[in-house]
Amino acid sequence: MSQEEKNELPKSIDLSHHLSDLAKARNVSPLKGFFKYYTPDVLALAGGVPHPDYFPFATLEASTLPVDTYSSTPGTITSPSPLAWLWNLFSSPSAARTTKISVPKYVSDPLNEVNLATALQYGMATGVLPLQQFLRDYSRIFYKPGFSDFTTLVHTGNTDGWSRVVYSLLNPGDSMLVEEWTYPSALSAALPIGIHTVAVPLDSKGMRPDALRHILSTWDSKSRGFNRPRLLYTVPIGQNPSGLTTGEERKRAIYEICVEYDIIIGEDDPYYILQEGEYIAPDVRAKRANARKETKKKTDEEEIRAFVESLERSYLHYDYQGRVIRLDTFSKTIAPGSRLGWFTCNPMFAERLERAGEVSTQAPSGFTQSMVTQLVVKTWGMAGYVRWLRGLRAEYTTRRDTLIDAFCKAMGVELVTEEYRNEKPGGDVWDGATVWTATLTANAGAVKGAKGVEKKVRVSFVPPTSGMFVWVKVDFSDLSPPIHVPGEEENEGTHEGRFWVTLAKAGLLILPGWVFRGEKEHAPIDPNKYAHYRISFSDSTVDNMDKAAKIFAKTLREYCSQ
Amino acid sequence: MSQEEKNELPKSIDLSHHLSDLAKARNVSPLKGFFKYYTPDVLALAGGVPHPDYFPFATLEASTLPVDTYSSTPGTITSPSPLAWLWNLFSSPSAARTTKISVPKYVSDPLNEVNLATALQYGMATGVLPLQQFLRDYSRIFYKPGFSDFTTLVHTGNTDGWSRVVYSLLNPGDSMLVEEWTYPSALSAALPIGIHTVAVPLDSKGMRPDALRHILSTWDSKSRGFNRPRLLYTVPIGQNPSGLTTGEERKRAIYEICVEYDIIIGEDDPYYILQEGEYIAPDVRAKRANARKETKKKTDEEEIRAFVESLERSYLHYDYQGRVIRLDTFSKTIAPGSRLGWFTCNPMFAERLERAGEVSTQAPSGFTQSMVTQLVVKTWGMAGYVRWLRGLRAEYTTRRDTLIDAFCKAMGVELVTEEYRNEKPGGDVWDGATVWTATLTANAGAVKGAKGVEKKVRVSFVPPTSGMFVWVKVDFSDLSPPIHVPGEEENEGTHEGRFWVTLAKAGLLILPGWVFRGEKEHAPIDPNKYAHYRISFSDSTVDNMDKAAKIFAKTLREYCSQ
Repeated sequence: MSQEEKNELPKSIDLSHHLSDLAKARNVSPLKGFFKYYTPDVLALAGGVPHPDYFPFATLEASTLPVDTYSSTPGTITSPSPLAWLWNLFSSPSAARTTKISVPKYVSDPLNEVNLATALQYGMATGVLPLQQFLRDYSRIFYKPGFSDFTTLVHTGNTDGWSRVVYSLLNPGDSMLVEEWTYPSALSAALPIGIHTVAVPLDSKGMRPDALRHILSTWDSKSRGFNRPRLLYTVPIGQNPSGLTTGEERKRAIYEICVEYDIIIGEDDPYYILQEGEYIAPDVRAKRANARKETKKKTDEEEIRAFVESLERSYLHYDYQGRVIRLDTFSKTIAPGSRLGWFTCNPMFAERLERAGEVSTQAPSGFTQSMVTQLVVKTWGMAGYVRWLRGLRAEYTTRRDTLIDAFCKAMGVELVTEEYRNEKPGGDVWDGATVWTATLTANAGAVKGAKGVEKKVRVSFVPPTSGMFVWVKVDFSDLSPPIHVPGEEENEGTHEGRFWVTLAKAGLLILPGWVFRGEKEHAPIDPNKYAHYRISFSDSTVDNMDKAAKIFAKTLREYCSQ
Repeated sequence: MSQEEKNELPKSIDLSHHLSDLAKARNVSPLKGFFKYYTPDVLALAGGVPHPDYFPFATLEASTLPVDTYSSTPGTITSPSPLAWLWNLFSSPSAARTTKISVPKYVSDPLNEVNLATALQYGMATGVLPLQQFLRDYSRIFYKPGFSDFTTLVHTGNTDGWSRVVYSLLNPGDSMLVEEWTYPSALSAALPIGIHTVAVPLDSKGMRPDALRHILSTWDSKSRGFNRPRLLYTVPIGQNPSGLTTGEERKRAIYEICVEYDIIIGEDDPYYILQEGEYIAPDVRAKRANARKETKKKTDEEEIRAFVESLERSYLHYDYQGRVIRLDTFSKTIAPGSRLGWFTCNPMFAERLERAGEVSTQAPSGFTQSMVTQLVVKTWGMAGYVRWLRGLRAEYTTRRDTLIDAFCKAMGVELVTEEYRNEKPGGDVWDGATVWTATLTANAGAVKGAKGVEKKVRVSFVPPTSGMFVWVKVDFSDLSPPIHVPGEEENEGTHEGRFWVTLAKAGLLILPGWVFRGEKEHAPIDPNKYAHYRISFSDSTVDNMDKAAKIFAKTLREYCSQ
């Protein structure tokens, strides 16, 4: 594919009309004038920087896990061990294999070797050099952007990154496109400055291009009260909360609409490497695992390529104009407490996002930069990191399978292979999917021996192919709407809310649909008829997943029989 | 002093009318509804959090310096060694005495013991518990706030902290009071959202209350074009760039004016513990050092109290209404790369500042929190940390002395003990100070043997009693203004700018006055007559300070003789 030959790719186009007033008003770096005269020979008595001798850390060290800690093929959950807190005290196979890494304060080549004198000092908002280089390589190899002059810039996690994007592109009163169910923290940054959100419907393949085009082509600022959106916020892989994944065809179609209507795409992709693939029923899964053959040993380069090829592409790959700002994070691959991630985008946006960083977080923590760079860049390298990511993907695949197995077992779910029946006028999040549905028949309103009316409650979900979440829909439409109880919060007075509270009181905490509404004031669907819940499989034990499924099934039966 | 008895102190007053539209519009924490039902027994399949087993760090460790690495009395600079980069490779007295600290992934009491499973996980924007407790104790012991319900909140350094203050208190088009020379990055956060700055004149005791009152009492919004300021930004100790320190009398007077005019005080105090005391000429200093007696060993509590009593108080101490938002940082005491600091303020502001953190940086880096908490809180404790701070203060005192000694020697400075002569109508930054002045007599305009006109150039400074900077004034008023050279930047075409460039080209980089203007569009003083420079003594070697002073003196002589 000739587009992948870097020197044949187009450069990004001029998108400076997208900058917010705030972004335009930000100065160039105050350090710019300073560095004009900064040479290796000059004596600099300019900065208010402590000498590194005064940092009380002589070295920073860590015991780190080997890249092959986790099997790269799904099986049973390796982690967490039910005795996780004892992990350190007694030897375990992986603990015994830890590698010691160490970052000294002073090194002979401070630009290229990780060292505390640099990492713990004041630094540019661009971070330490070896990390910058690694991230650029990573974006190039994994995303193969469709324009040549893409660049990368560190941030302190996608929440920080997204805040910077909002403030750099939108003025108060502007609007942005979001998925009809979306990540609430992305809205928390935007809503307080008076940004309006416009929800784009989803179906089983992700965001619907027809719906997106309809919104934009029929836009009437007067009746809406605000201008047409110029920014799209999307979580394309393992979407939060719906678990949906947007593939190549959809991405290309959505990208073309964004070109046509001059929209910037903010691609928030924390679950990118957690592309778990199709859920397969346990019996078939077991047979396939037995049939799996040893494949011949690959070179590092082949391993990297095979992994990259196994993943959906980023919007960046289809971006020939530089209108995608991609957000990546180490939160899911190393640790959320890293507070480290990066943008990949055109150099003009990157420069403005860097200025925004200079007046807030500055560089990411030097402790983080030291440890992540020393481990990922200097100890593992790209091939090692890919091996680690493959292990994580396999673990999350097993987790996904374990949770769904448990729910199927507890609910007695039967597979519905027909096209999903719309439950919402104009389309539904699962249109076109293979949906798993359990139908409970409850004896609602039974009082002391007297037979109640028979009611059906259906629980449906689509096993996600990526991410950390199963999005469950409960069809309460056969039940009467609940009667509001004085003192009850509004959202807790619907079937969605009341069942959620009932579950929590029964010992299971998941997240209810209303939290994820793309337009806060509009429920995409009546929560008294169709309740939605996000169930995470990211961090519980096998036992707890089993218990959770049982609590869910038992509590739902009881709830419907009231 | 009865005000110091905590239970007799007043509570903070209602200051909610100071909140910006942005701060008011921020939601309560999205986690609030979640935590309502979160009990230790509930199964939580709610968050998108990775299990800590997937963090590739089994332990985090460090070799750390002992608290008494640096002598607590000033002397010669212990650091940096000219062979600093070899520091780790060969044994040195302090390197040999390092202590190993270690943070395991799992512990039995994860709330109170530092552990990676907590610190590297997603966490509240309030940070880990032992650090929260320590910071609260620190603020209570060091600042003795004048109101009872003060609280503390971590941020990722004072730049982040100050950004949050600006966005939480000011709307676009509002104004804020700043010192006439001020820290430029504090303005970089505010100016792009359309905040106007109003410069308050300084004299040798810090910000002038009479000038502050004059500005506020004669305020005319119509002629100014914007409303009276409701926020004051100040760096009261070792002010950046002037080196000035504001004492008790001034702080009380300024505080009362702020009460009268309902102004919030943003106290940015990174140099607080670097209170070095009076500069004493080398010969007297040597005699005093010899006369210093061994004092009897103090208890930990006495040591802490003695150190606290040796320091100027924070504005917080005089604050009986809760209108001070104080910003502290670990950047000068541990390392800038920590990206860790904290607010001390009333709980209403703290809650809004926490919400601002949730949509940007979230919690500070878990690597930072682990290492700083394990070292400062768990290993050193308050008394150990105080000992470390005393060492740092002594080191910076020595550095200040060394730089000033070098400049006096190179310039041939003579002490002017008279009251400083105003060079600026209406007052001057050094009014009331003992100023050190050197007068150079140069042969200006001499051409090929022909004698030029004799010109006098005076170089003045006041040795700072705190901080990292010497603020130098060069009186060029006897020289003709320079002729602007085509292509030269505006600021570089004045004596201030042109001498700065000349110095840089001669091998010495310091910072010029224009960078620090409190009102960007107005020079407090004509830079063709009085040029200002900030010289830092924070991180160079004794040798380099000597070289710098010689370059400065030689270049100035040549510059004046042109």
